[in-house]
Amino acid sequence: MSNLMNKNIKKIAVLTSGGDSPGMNAAIRSVVRTCAYHNINCVGIYRGYQGMIEGDFKEMDARSVKGIINKGGTILKSARSNEFRTVEGRKKAYEKLKEANVDALVAVGGDGTFTGAMIFSSEYDFPVMGIPGTIDNDIFGTSHTLGYDTALNTVVDVIDKIRDTASSHNRLFFIEVMGRDVGHIALNAGVGAGAEEILIPEEDLGLERLLESLRRSKRSGKSSSIVVVAEGDKIGKNVFELKDYVDENLAEYEVRVSVLGHMQRGGSPSCFDRVLASRMGVKAVESLLEGKSNYMVGLLNDKMALTPLDQAIKGQSKINLELLRVSDIMTT
Amino acid sequence: MSNLMNKNIKKIAVLTSGGDSPGMNAAIRSVVRTCAYHNINCVGIYRGYQGMIEGDFKEMDARSVKGIINKGGTILKSARSNEFRTVEGRKKAYEKLKEANVDALVAVGGDGTFTGAMIFSSEYDFPVMGIPGTIDNDIFGTSHTLGYDTALNTVVDVIDKIRDTASSHNRLFFIEVMGRDVGHIALNAGVGAGAEEILIPEEDLGLERLLESLRRSKRSGKSSSIVVVAEGDKIGKNVFELKDYVDENLAEYEVRVSVLGHMQRGGSPSCFDRVLASRMGVKAVESLLEGKSNYMVGLLNDKMALTPLDQAIKGQSKINLELLRVSDIMTT
Amino acid sequence: MSNLMNKNIKKIAVLTSGGDSPGMNAAIRSVVRTCAYHNINCVGIYRGYQGMIEGDFKEMDARSVKGIINKGGTILKSARSNEFRTVEGRKKAYEKLKEANVDALVAVGGDGTFTGAMIFSSEYDFPVMGIPGTIDNDIFGTSHTLGYDTALNTVVDVIDKIRDTASSHNRLFFIEVMGRDVGHIALNAGVGAGAEEILIPEEDLGLERLLESLRRSKRSGKSSSIVVVAEGDKIGKNVFELKDYVDENLAEYEVRVSVLGHMQRGGSPSCFDRVLASRMGVKAVESLLEGKSNYMVGLLNDKMALTPLDQAIKGQSKINLELLRVSDIMTT
Amino acid sequence: MSNLMNKNIKKIAVLTSGGDSPGMNAAIRSVVRTCAYHNINCVGIYRGYQGMIEGDFKEMDARSVKGIINKGGTILKSARSNEFRTVEGRKKAYEKLKEANVDALVAVGGDGTFTGAMIFSSEYDFPVMGIPGTIDNDIFGTSHTLGYDTALNTVVDVIDKIRDTASSHNRLFFIEVMGRDVGHIALNAGVGAGAEEILIPEEDLGLERLLESLRRSKRSGKSSSIVVVAEGDKIGKNVFELKDYVDENLAEYEVRVSVLGHMQRGGSPSCFDRVLASRMGVKAVESLLEGKSNYMVGLLNDKMALTPLDQAIKGQSKINLELLRVSDIMTT
Repeated sequence: MSNLMNKNIKKIAVLTSGGDSPGMNAAIRSVVRTCAYHNINCVGIYRGYQGMIEGDFKEMDARSVKGIINKGGTILKSARSNEFRTVEGRKKAYEKLKEANVDALVAVGGDGTFTGAMIFSSEYDFPVMGIPGTIDNDIFGTSHTLGYDTALNTVVDVIDKIRDTASSHNRLFFIEVMGRDVGHIALNAGVGAGAEEILIPEEDLGLERLLESLRRSKRSGKSSSIVVVAEGDKIGKNVFELKDYVDENLAEYEVRVSVLGHMQRGGSPSCFDRVLASRMGVKAVESLLEGKSNYMVGLLNDKMALTPLDQAIKGQSKINLELLRVSDIMTT
Repeated sequence: MSNLMNKNIKKIAVLTSGGDSPGMNAAIRSVVRTCAYHNINCVGIYRGYQGMIEGDFKEMDARSVKGIINKGGTILKSARSNEFRTVEGRKKAYEKLKEANVDALVAVGGDGTFTGAMIFSSEYDFPVMGIPGTIDNDIFGTSHTLGYDTALNTVVDVIDKIRDTASSHNRLFFIEVMGRDVGHIALNAGVGAGAEEILIPEEDLGLERLLESLRRSKRSGKSSSIVVVAEGDKIGKNVFELKDYVDENLAEYEVRVSVLGHMQRGGSPSCFDRVLASRMGVKAVESLLEGKSNYMVGLLNDKMALTPLDQAIKGQSKINLELLRVSDIMTT
Repeated sequence: MSNLMNKNIKKIAVLTSGGDSPGMNAAIRSVVRTCAYHNINCVGIYRGYQGMIEGDFKEMDARSVKGIINKGGTILKSARSNEFRTVEGRKKAYEKLKEANVDALVAVGGDGTFTGAMIFSSEYDFPVMGIPGTIDNDIFGTSHTLGYDTALNTVVDVIDKIRDTASSHNRLFFIEVMGRDVGHIALNAGVGAGAEEILIPEEDLGLERLLESLRRSKRSGKSSSIVVVAEGDKIGKNVFELKDYVDENLAEYEVRVSVLGHMQRGGSPSCFDRVLASRMGVKAVESLLEGKSNYMVGLLNDKMALTPLDQAIKGQSKINLELLRVSDIMTT
Repeated sequence: MSNLMNKNIKKIAVLTSGGDSPGMNAAIRSVVRTCAYHNINCVGIYRGYQGMIEGDFKEMDARSVKGIINKGGTILKSARSNEFRTVEGRKKAYEKLKEANVDALVAVGGDGTFTGAMIFSSEYDFPVMGIPGTIDNDIFGTSHTLGYDTALNTVVDVIDKIRDTASSHNRLFFIEVMGRDVGHIALNAGVGAGAEEILIPEEDLGLERLLESLRRSKRSGKSSSIVVVAEGDKIGKNVFELKDYVDENLAEYEVRVSVLGHMQRGGSPSCFDRVLASRMGVKAVESLLEGKSNYMVGLLNDKMALTPLDQAIKGQSKINLELLRVSDIMTT
């Protein structure tokens, strides 16, 4: 591929932005080492676009990213930047990049991150490449976002623990998991944890059907139940209201609630996420060196694939309908 | 010890009651196998005192408890029993025990469990022995209750995950942990997780000092902070009110809340809790066989020790003041 | 799909055979519950084909598989059966199945298991369906075998621990991982754990190049190194001989060896493996009900797919060449 | 305590030496922060006594030890130093300490580390304080060495995994664990993992009794067995020879071996070890400030206690005989 090499790119910057996710550090490591492999300079930008505006940069070589592949969070930190939403903010950012002789950018994050990158790229004809880093798996153009697999393992591990106490006391637990407007975490972790019901935004089960299902579950001899609820579930009630509703309508259950919260974003990444991050970092840097811009690196059919950033943002990551059916069958 | 053997005890029952905790299964296993070792029959009672009233018993031999030493929860289930608080309830329970030829009881649980055992024992002159099973470590007469060590590991593991995201975003987290009216979990897990502040019921820090400490922490260059709050903290505000208060008074922090909840009660027990449960089960059964009754088995100075049940209930498990000081020094 | 239903299948048997792998219990659960969902009877066969010969069967309903989705190993046990390799053995097995009115078989295991199923099916025109359960990922027709993802996480978790001590002492570790004749575990876990070198059967690096690489690694400032070796590596030396060779030729390193062994086969399955097992069980049972036979259920491009058993056995599961290159770049 | 303060100590050095253990980083953090709390300067010495000889020092303040409480290994690295065994080596080390204005030393390690500290202290009248950091728990004067609790959890976690596969295949596993000449890890992890037999240096079971026990175990209906073997076991055969011996004499078992090795030294420390390390660091620094020298900080009856270094080295850490008996009863 060296013959394809873009001679104009001599320094690449990398940043992480938006909610952090396990695997971001592995992606940074991969970007930095791929630059080193191709004798390209690399700088890390702290605190996402805000650090870009402030010129909060750090030169990075292969040794700078030693010992981080297995660490959660992001050594480059992440932040939201309202200033980058303004023309002036982006102008400052561009000037800082030019001062530092940066020729291209790899941005790790979700759709907000990609929107920023796309606008910036179009305004300044600046080469950008996106890596999808979010636990929610809500990005079009990749079967898996970075951190999603780790979050699923974190969630089933916690639900396994809660089931210990649920089944010891014959209780019903409503467990709220992350996922914003999509049910990927809830559906997969729900099936993985053997949940009796899974409430996701993509499917409005209805309160009546939930009660009926719980009653049937009780009759069939189940002494405890786990209901996994996506935070963006559209049933019209939050998880505490659900508890109250069931308390009133199903006297036979003692109901408890657990909101898993931010722990889902942390932790050492799974092997899958570490490998995915390593592959994505290579692909992102080499795509820039090949002269490509404005794409997101993704995993499609187990292979690295590029999707234009605008499609990645606009497209929808669909729930696996087969899995919905599997879930129904498993709760027979 | 065979010469001390109480010839009148030919069958021992074991139950778990109150909130479950990791290590209860290991304790059941130990009670059952110690009975087998001494050629004493053993029955498990399901659902605590309620199952005792209903005669929900199961004969258990050494093989009945195979493969449970590493499982959270309790295979005998746990439940609260209002009926056992009545004279009639306890009478029924006694009759069921007599029908089943049970001569003595080992009750695993917290102070509610021990109170029931003590009353029952005094009314019917029935030999009882208590094993402290609760994650709260709030029992007098033992340095460690069953499940406490495991819960501490669960809590620091989760806080480690939350710290990944806290430090990536320069955030302040209030994390509520269990412990009812005592701060053992909060203090130990707080020190173990490197928390910047620890709020426990035993010490009223005061809101002003909390703010001052957080401000100092910020000035000293810390970009993120973890505050661990015991559920029974006496500062006068719950964890969500604390968040609001800090939000209003410390604009420099972005504050988040996480309530760890029931996951703290589950999970595979630590090696410490498995060994402790094994030792306690042996001690409980052999103490009954030696003719003792109305004691709780505990760990004092790394040795098995007996404490009269009434003292175990009334006595107070004190916070380690040295550790409070260590906590202060660590947050320098 | 009910209209496609094969009316002749009223009872399905399930067995696990060969080396066990995490997710086998989740697959058993899924087969049993899918049968229940379709009102088909289900029997579990203990100890693989040997139990089939001996008629070691157990009727299973939806409740029989409660609480096993998160357990490693297999509740049906596994065993090798020389007797099943004989015509007489298979005849006995067939008779036992007929006695028990079993109409079809789901066999969970690796290529040995599938070979047995295929021969049995051809001899007795008996409907069979295979589910690939092995940590080695060495089966054609599926991107992931059951247990592979979990094993990868187990391996990187252990290597993370070993790296703690390796980097504290500036040591070189050779770590042998499972995988028989294929390097999937070594390559993926090696990349995931940030190994400096990965030795796999598919690529003969050569001893000289290994030494050169380790020397370069040392010069580049790395103070410790991890070399992951697949058990079937073709470099011509086992992991202890490798150690001796490097000890003699690279005085600057202190070398240690760790053979991970059977722990790689155990443990609670990852969310991925639990979900995969659930999907595969549904697909296997419903394929039988649709009249299909002699296929293996697999995951191809994130979808359930059927591959004829003979192809699954003969075909080769190829190493991901892109990942080999990623590995090289990461060790820059 | 400020009135007790030794005015002559203005700078304290800390080093880790010998085999690393989880909790060493937490101890370094505690020493550094306790110095900061008392306005004492602190330097870290890299690579133990060898780095002391070479003047490989680093000034450390409270922020230098951020984010390390939960990390395995030691950020100060560890190494053996033959040079420090010589008069000349120790002279160089003393000169380096004086050049750097170091007034006292905290040494974290095992008996070799303490021996070095004691000789150095006597030769140069230099204040030293020891912290016991080793997973083996073979130090007199403390009920727990740093890292021991974590290692126990690592071992039972691995044995849990191996048991999955052992019980799926009805196999017998010999599992070798660390512990040099003492059986603490083997005995505690063996009881915690529910091992059928535990072979430790302190008790020569004899091969005949082992066979008899395994035969009895088989007869009693156990289908799989775990035998935990301490590396220093005195039965006269290593773990592979044991396998061969049992293979020859107990045809009914299929035997496998697993040597756990160095993974036992790594991993994130348990809450217990983090808290213990924090307490020990405070005690070590404050004892030096109080004018004490030549002691080891330990945990006795749940309280911090000082033991003269020569006693810590010469004294013997005894196996808990009660636990041996518990182990026998549990394998009924």
